[in-house]
Amino acid sequence: MKIGIIGLGLIGGSLAMSIRKHTEHTVFGCDINPEVVLRAKAVEAIHDELTEDMLPACDVVLVSLFPQLCADWIAAHADAFGPHALVIDCAGVKRHVCRQVEPIAAAHPWTYIGGHPMAGREFSGFAYARANLFENASMILCPSAEVPIEAREAAKAFFLESGFKMVRFCTPEAHDQMIAYTSQLAHVVSGAYVKNPLAADHKGFSAGSFLDLTRVARMNETMWTELFLENNDLLLPALDDLILRLNQYRDALASADPDRVLPVLREGRIAKEALD
Amino acid sequence: MKIGIIGLGLIGGSLAMSIRKHTEHTVFGCDINPEVVLRAKAVEAIHDELTEDMLPACDVVLVSLFPQLCADWIAAHADAFGPHALVIDCAGVKRHVCRQVEPIAAAHPWTYIGGHPMAGREFSGFAYARANLFENASMILCPSAEVPIEAREAAKAFFLESGFKMVRFCTPEAHDQMIAYTSQLAHVVSGAYVKNPLAADHKGFSAGSFLDLTRVARMNETMWTELFLENNDLLLPALDDLILRLNQYRDALASADPDRVLPVLREGRIAKEALD
Repeated sequence: MKIGIIGLGLIGGSLAMSIRKHTEHTVFGCDINPEVVLRAKAVEAIHDELTEDMLPACDVVLVSLFPQLCADWIAAHADAFGPHALVIDCAGVKRHVCRQVEPIAAAHPWTYIGGHPMAGREFSGFAYARANLFENASMILCPSAEVPIEAREAAKAFFLESGFKMVRFCTPEAHDQMIAYTSQLAHVVSGAYVKNPLAADHKGFSAGSFLDLTRVARMNETMWTELFLENNDLLLPALDDLILRLNQYRDALASADPDRVLPVLREGRIAKEALD
Repeated sequence: MKIGIIGLGLIGGSLAMSIRKHTEHTVFGCDINPEVVLRAKAVEAIHDELTEDMLPACDVVLVSLFPQLCADWIAAHADAFGPHALVIDCAGVKRHVCRQVEPIAAAHPWTYIGGHPMAGREFSGFAYARANLFENASMILCPSAEVPIEAREAAKAFFLESGFKMVRFCTPEAHDQMIAYTSQLAHVVSGAYVKNPLAADHKGFSAGSFLDLTRVARMNETMWTELFLENNDLLLPALDDLILRLNQYRDALASADPDRVLPVLREGRIAKEALD
């Protein structure tokens, strides 16, 4: 197959490398920065640059841009995709993108599925892309009811052969609710935690838990501002839930009563153990 | 030298293994559970069991029990240590232990230094001990003004030769303030975060940030209840600080204004980058 990748950042670049590593597909890529395209070609992440005239021939088009840009780019190229093309965006919010793209796809012969590759790094850009980024990752796919079962299965097979560990189907709503908690809230917490001025003196006083908790504070604030605000209605309740639970720890600790503190900690341990 | 280790849990067991791996010292150990002692001997974590009559011959005594038990055990054996012995506890709170043990040490010829090996795992007990637990870890030492420089230097040399990456000296107060933030608060956050009922459905929706943030929620709640309450006066302000900062994210998000959200995220990134 011919695979077109729009945007060769951390995600698009890693997708290209992973597809090259695991499959025999031909990978074309484009990026707003011409140097990135040259670099991607030099390191054999892509076979060649993807130009506009090649779009109709692409069997799969992966759009790895900021969320609104995904929707805009697909809208602008709606007439350029081949009739059998599978167009998948990789934005981290799905309702916002799907509700713009699905009506466009419904008016065209090609198929659109909202997607989200569940891996990342605290660094962005092609320089940090790597072929094994998705090795232990899930690809989330949010096909609308319009998407035929064959296209769902083809998409699933494509991501599995391209190196993903699993593919999970769900609605855009379910995706956004889960991601508000598992990813977005984790980023909020990390950023808030690392702002304590004591952090500056952590050397010699910190171990794994400090490093774990501060890792993703290093985020691209432009992208995450967009992601947060496009999912605000679900992120805010998740954040409120956390603040409420932290206040339960606060109140238990303020009582100085071990019989109040211990159950609060035990609940957390049990919740964690239930995940395994 | 002869090293005595009191308590062969995760920390005491790992200290034994690390000392055996890196030095020629003779390691004796004891534990409330006789099977743990047999096991530690069988896997050569210790040369032999430490019995009460051997205490006077120990050059270094490492007490790896829950904090109050550290103080109690040292008090109960104050007359058993040799005059040149270096007695070091490994409890995760230092003011609480040091203020009980320092007056006892002052009335005896042996030397006491409060200590805290800055490594851990989310599992406890000898079964999880390992020789490389402290490979990248700091050993914090809180000697009182009474401790002669030679004893400080001897303690530092001992931990460096035993496999620690660095030794950091500070007061019990400085230790407790830093640890309230770098370790205790991280455990509070992890426990609070994982309690969201959405966690149960995380599979396929989670990546590194979720795993990082939930890892230490699996804590021994009996030990951590004690650690938290013995450091309550410093943990509570650290927790209040975090709740305050989370509310800043909340308010920015609630405004739905990217010009308010972006600076809040940027501050977090800059704080994180300043740590490197």
